[in-house]
Parts: sequence; C-alpha cells; structure tokens
Amino acid sequence: MRCCVRTSCGKRLSRIEGQVRGIARMLEDDRYCIDVVTQISAVRAALKRVEEEILKDHVSTCVETAIQSGDKDEQRRKVGELVATLGKMRA
Amino acid sequence: MRCCVRTSCGKRLSRIEGQVRGIARMLEDDRYCIDVVTQISAVRAALKRVEEEILKDHVSTCVETAIQSGDKDEQRRKVGELVATLGKMRA
Amino acid sequence: MRCCVRTSCGKRLSRIEGQVRGIARMLEDDRYCIDVVTQISAVRAALKRVEEEILKDHVSTCVETAIQSGDKDEQRRKVGELVATLGKMRA
Amino acid sequence: MRCCVRTSCGKRLSRIEGQVRGIARMLEDDRYCIDVVTQISAVRAALKRVEEEILKDHVSTCVETAIQSGDKDEQRRKVGELVATLGKMRA
Repeated sequence: MRCCVRTSCGKRLSRIEGQVRGIARMLEDDRYCIDVVTQISAVRAALKRVEEEILKDHVSTCVETAIQSGDKDEQRRKVGELVATLGKMRA
Repeated sequence: MRCCVRTSCGKRLSRIEGQVRGIARMLEDDRYCIDVVTQISAVRAALKRVEEEILKDHVSTCVETAIQSGDKDEQRRKVGELVATLGKMRA
Repeated sequence: MRCCVRTSCGKRLSRIEGQVRGIARMLEDDRYCIDVVTQISAVRAALKRVEEEILKDHVSTCVETAIQSGDKDEQRRKVGELVATLGKMRA
Repeated sequence: MRCCVRTSCGKRLSRIEGQVRGIARMLEDDRYCIDVVTQISAVRAALKRVEEEILKDHVSTCVETAIQSGDKDEQRRKVGELVATLGKMRA
C-alpha cells in the first residue's frame, strides 16, 4: 500500500475510533436510540470509504505489479481475491 | 433503552473500538491490503449487529410506549423515524 | 394501496418486465457479460424504487388506519411487519 | 459467456419475468402491500444470483483470456471493469 494511502486511512481510522468511543458515551448518557443508530450508520459509511480507498490503491499497486510481472497464476490469484473481497463488501 | 441492552451494546462497542485500533496497526505494519479490507468488513458487520440490537429494543420500548399512550401524533413520529432509520441502514 | 400508487407501480413493473425480456435477448445475442450485468443492476434498482413507493404508501394508508383505529395489537403487528420487511430489503 | 451459463441464466430470467408479471397481478388484485414488497425482494434476490453467475463465468472466460493473452492493457481494462461492476452491485 502506498505510504500516502496508509497515512490518509490511518487518520480516518483514528477519527472513526473516536466516533465509536463517542457512541459508547451516548449509550452511557442514555441518549435516544434513533440518534445512536444514526451515528453508527455514519461510522459504517466512513469505514466503507476507507475500504474503497484501500481497494482502489490495491488495484493500482499490487494488482498492477501482478500484471507487470506477467505471472499468470499471480494474476489469477489477484483477480480471485478482488472478486471475493468485493463480494463480501456487498453485505 | 433498557439497561441490559446498553450494557451489552457498550461491551460490543468497546470490542469494536479495539478492532479499529488493530486495523490502524495493520496499516502501520504495512499488512496486505486485502487482509486490512477483510478486517474492516468484519467491523462493519459488527456495527450492523449493534444497530439491529438497539432497533429491536427501540421497538419494544419507545415504540411500545407510544402505542400504549394512544397518542396518534407520537405514534406517527415513531413510525416515520423507524422507516427513515431502516432506510439509511440499507446503505 | 391507493389506486394511483397501484397504477404507477403497475406501469413501472411492466417496464421492468420488458427490461428483463431485453436482458434475456442480450444473452441470446451473446452480448458482453459486463453489459448484461450492468442491465441487471439497473433492473434491481428499478425494483427497489417500486418497493419504496409501495412502502411509503403503506405507511400513510394501512399503518395510518391502524393508528386511527387505536387498536394496540394491530399497531404492534404493523410496526413488526415494517421492521421485518425493511430488514429484508437490506439484503 | 459459456453456452451452458447463457442457457441457465436464460431460464432464470424467464422465471423472473413470470414473477414480475405475477407481482403486477397482485397489484391489480389489490393484494396486501407487505406481501407485494416481499415478492419484489425475492425477485431482486433472484436477479442478484443471475448477476453472480454471469460474473463468475466472466472471470473464468473473458478475464482468463486476457490473462492468457499477456496483453497488459487488456488485463487492466478487465480488472477495472470488474471493480466498477462489483462496486455498482453493492447498491
């Protein structure tokens, strides 16, 4: 993974970590259920964007390296991983 | 929200918080992209289960209270909130 | 269901039926896989909009009737159905 | 697309076409909203399975051909298409 992507995703994850702590505090403060659920949906959406950023970078680095290498088995592995991972992200 | 649900969801959220920190460490350790994305998908699924637990409790507490109250406007508000929240959870 | 909603959703469904037939023809014509999948995703999105239109109408007719009736059991049934149906629509 | 996949998906699509017609009849018969929505969700799920069958075949035919060809640009195109298509299927 490129360094700039690791840094940007690292920052996003630490914000998300803070948001999760914030949601836990909402529970302690017995905040209204719908407000808590709305916050959780926002965190899920933020996590999805991190996934997408990493996958985009993965295609232009790891998958590209496999293409450059001409190694057919490695290319098949990379394609198989992508399809499986994107399939799981549909849940 | 019932106390037992707040406690159980609080525990889940603190586990999720730890998982998010773990994913950040995976980035620092330059772990393979697909492994990182797989972990993020697992955290999203865990968050979805917290949402579902809270909403289930919401129906049997807040919505039930509105039904018991006979207050038609309050009942409409509760139904509207549920539909909007569940609609957002589809994203 | 209100008559206007039945008419509008009926028209959408007959368009969707035509689209499904069109996709079957794409298969017969051995069209490129990605083009076929793109069309299927479009049909799924169109079906989702029909679901949403029907549910929106359901809230303002059937659920509203239950609210007006003051029948608590019927109100509980309606809320339970909504949550279960919207939960399935998340798949 | 392999002939066997075209045949199997063709059969699925004609079943789906019949189901869509059946849903239109449910509207004409003024059937209960939730029953109609449940049927539509089932059709969406059936369409998703057709998408998955076609994509699976696409990976082992079109993408495999690109891998065999050693044509790097064609391989990049195939990977890009897969990521874009699977991304849309998440909606």
